[in-house]
Amino acid sequence: MKRMALRYTGKAKKMYETDDPDVLWVEYMDQATALNGKKKVHIDGKGAVNRRISAMLFAELTETGVPTHYLSAPDETTMLVKKATMLPLEAVVRNFVSGSFERKFALAHLLPLTPAVHEFYFKSDALDDPFINDEQIIALKIADAATLKQVHALSDTVNTYLTRRFAAIGIKLVDFKLEFGRLSDGTLVLADELSPDNFRLVDEATGESLDKDVFRKNEGPLTPVYEEVFARLQKGVQHV
Amino acid sequence: MKRMALRYTGKAKKMYETDDPDVLWVEYMDQATALNGKKKVHIDGKGAVNRRISAMLFAELTETGVPTHYLSAPDETTMLVKKATMLPLEAVVRNFVSGSFERKFALAHLLPLTPAVHEFYFKSDALDDPFINDEQIIALKIADAATLKQVHALSDTVNTYLTRRFAAIGIKLVDFKLEFGRLSDGTLVLADELSPDNFRLVDEATGESLDKDVFRKNEGPLTPVYEEVFARLQKGVQHV
Repeated sequence: MKRMALRYTGKAKKMYETDDPDVLWVEYMDQATALNGKKKVHIDGKGAVNRRISAMLFAELTETGVPTHYLSAPDETTMLVKKATMLPLEAVVRNFVSGSFERKFALAHLLPLTPAVHEFYFKSDALDDPFINDEQIIALKIADAATLKQVHALSDTVNTYLTRRFAAIGIKLVDFKLEFGRLSDGTLVLADELSPDNFRLVDEATGESLDKDVFRKNEGPLTPVYEEVFARLQKGVQHV
Repeated sequence: MKRMALRYTGKAKKMYETDDPDVLWVEYMDQATALNGKKKVHIDGKGAVNRRISAMLFAELTETGVPTHYLSAPDETTMLVKKATMLPLEAVVRNFVSGSFERKFALAHLLPLTPAVHEFYFKSDALDDPFINDEQIIALKIADAATLKQVHALSDTVNTYLTRRFAAIGIKLVDFKLEFGRLSDGTLVLADELSPDNFRLVDEATGESLDKDVFRKNEGPLTPVYEEVFARLQKGVQHV
């Protein structure tokens, strides 16, 4: 597989075309951003550990039957994925209150949410990723009702799997963000990445953050924290 | 019926207890507010015309089978209503793009929305009435799933009725806000008021606003505009 033209540079990843028109080359970068990109820092080793966690979880989810864009991880910071037309939505799932939800509704930190709360944000830098409800998504033709239903169901499946996977290694999955896309054959797949950049993780024993909040709140070096998450995942039960 | 203790003062209404524990006395005030209460003005005659429009539409909707809190309108600015425990939600229905929806998503003014878009706002002065989605409402126990389903269905019924009612008198119903409550016997009812304070109305012939936007945008005296709406409603078809 040959890396070709750069297609897109995100906050922590670069996507390239390859010699296969259906395959993209994803480069996980040693970079972290917060505050909508206003805070941007080089962090040694972050790309590699995120690629490792992401590849592991994509492989496991694929094996449990979740359609994903994942193909393979040819080197330390690279992932090959199926090319997908992305839905311009961030699909957030919350198991416990935290972050913007806690602030917006003045709620107790880590209040359990049963059933889990789903939220969508419309991906638009110009509009600052506004919170959007299902009927607005359908009316604005961002996704149709059937697609949204699939996104909800897949998010729930992913949540069930990841909640158990992290619980088995002493980590509480507080909330996370997923993104979905459609392959050229129309299949809806889980895409983007699966790493502590997009998960809010809390150590059950110590209550400490094991995710990008460490960076957001300047609580110390990020890479060792992510490496701890990866090490626990490696030791933990792989298939629930 | 005797007016008793003041229970609540809103932006444009005062609610009093009566000698019947199941009945409230609503006083429509000559007052208008905008910008979340920062702009507040006395407007002669506004209370009376809003009471007239509101009583007329509540009576019609009750007759078509929509459960409402409406009982009677004993004098020019007074309405008697069944006491209800209000859901702390503003239920917005949008038939065409305007207002906050237009600004938030940079959309074309008066773009038609088919089907109509429903939005909820959590009524909280302290939190500035945040936009909330259905799953957040359920998780925060503001309303259960069955109640939300009923609110959606009733909002659609009201929308169908009002859209036709206004279309018959040359007025486009752009969007509107409803509020719901529960009677002591558990019945969910349409409550609050039904007036151009809560409807966005556009004259089909001239494109002019026939609602509180006239006040928000300082486009001239408000009461004659509301009186024009009432006069047309009186002449129009009463039962669709």
